[in-house]
Amino acid sequence: MDKIFINHPEIEKYIFSLLEDDDPVLKEMEELAEKLNFPIVGRIVGKLLYLITKIKKPKLVVEIGSGFGYSGYWFAKALQGSGKLVLSDYKGENIQLAKEFLQKANLDKNVIFEVGDGVEIAKRYKDIDILFLDHEKSRYKEAADALKENLSKEALVIADNVLWYGKVLKPEQSKKVKAIDEFNRYMIKHFDTTIIPVRDGLLLAQKR
Amino acid sequence: MDKIFINHPEIEKYIFSLLEDDDPVLKEMEELAEKLNFPIVGRIVGKLLYLITKIKKPKLVVEIGSGFGYSGYWFAKALQGSGKLVLSDYKGENIQLAKEFLQKANLDKNVIFEVGDGVEIAKRYKDIDILFLDHEKSRYKEAADALKENLSKEALVIADNVLWYGKVLKPEQSKKVKAIDEFNRYMIKHFDTTIIPVRDGLLLAQKR
Repeated sequence: MDKIFINHPEIEKYIFSLLEDDDPVLKEMEELAEKLNFPIVGRIVGKLLYLITKIKKPKLVVEIGSGFGYSGYWFAKALQGSGKLVLSDYKGENIQLAKEFLQKANLDKNVIFEVGDGVEIAKRYKDIDILFLDHEKSRYKEAADALKENLSKEALVIADNVLWYGKVLKPEQSKKVKAIDEFNRYMIKHFDTTIIPVRDGLLLAQKR
Repeated sequence: MDKIFINHPEIEKYIFSLLEDDDPVLKEMEELAEKLNFPIVGRIVGKLLYLITKIKKPKLVVEIGSGFGYSGYWFAKALQGSGKLVLSDYKGENIQLAKEFLQKANLDKNVIFEVGDGVEIAKRYKDIDILFLDHEKSRYKEAADALKENLSKEALVIADNVLWYGKVLKPEQSKKVKAIDEFNRYMIKHFDTTIIPVRDGLLLAQKR
């Protein structure tokens, strides 16, 4: 099955144009992503993560799969140091870049930068209020399952790419897509869950 | 300009199939909407309103343009009587239906049903934590502006249909579309705002 658009590209352009932002660090990160063809959540999802965080007011946010810190930027911007934020990536060079970007944006207060297996790193934290999953898609379910006890009451689990270019419509076509579809069904069963059809699909779930 | 899909219809079908719900009242409301061709936010937006409300934990939610209570159902389900919910519609028969549906679903505790001009009704309430706009699209900006002082600190304003089938891409084509585009820009300027490209566009904003 071919890739399909979750959102109409012209609609994305309209919303993007409204979400103007004059922070040069944000622009630099977006330009780097474009140059390296590095997958980031983008500004529309970023602003949504920011708003959800502002509404939730978490004390602890843990990211698994931070890349060079783009989603972390939005969490940090919402927190403004009022809660702890853990970024993790298995690549040291990504985390080094994330650190530099967040420092430059003056958003590194109360941010912890970790290199290694994100699920193992997250296990060391208790009372996670927001767990953000953006690592290997085939490991989402493992992460949600392994970290259940590390989540606070009514914690949020947010996961990116849960529609995988629309490929979840035919989950049998690959192991990866099947794993994402299974993760979605697992979350619907065990958490208060919805999937927001924005960009590549954002799962939003609250612990019951 | 023709209508365009904000979301790919197959994607909507996938998410809808995951959001199974065995409440017969919910199904009855959805069937009535289909039969009457009555515009409701639908289950994907409904579940998102539910989750946002669960995260926000509002003491007071006010709806302008409740129709027969479909979005109200999701707010009431999230609140479970722990906060007050005001439904309003200019048509008495809609509000009568809303009352019957919410009673049948056992979700009418702490729900107030009002008939009349929603903006005028909302003005009588102070410290609104979530204001939901779903009335005449040309009056969204007026409502947001008139009710600013009635919103609590960090209140949310949520508005439906802010992409109007994609017509906002060419706002000059009609007064109504121009009004929606102006509302979006007004909100971006005065609130912490994003537009979620789900169904017909859901604006989510927090008072600064």
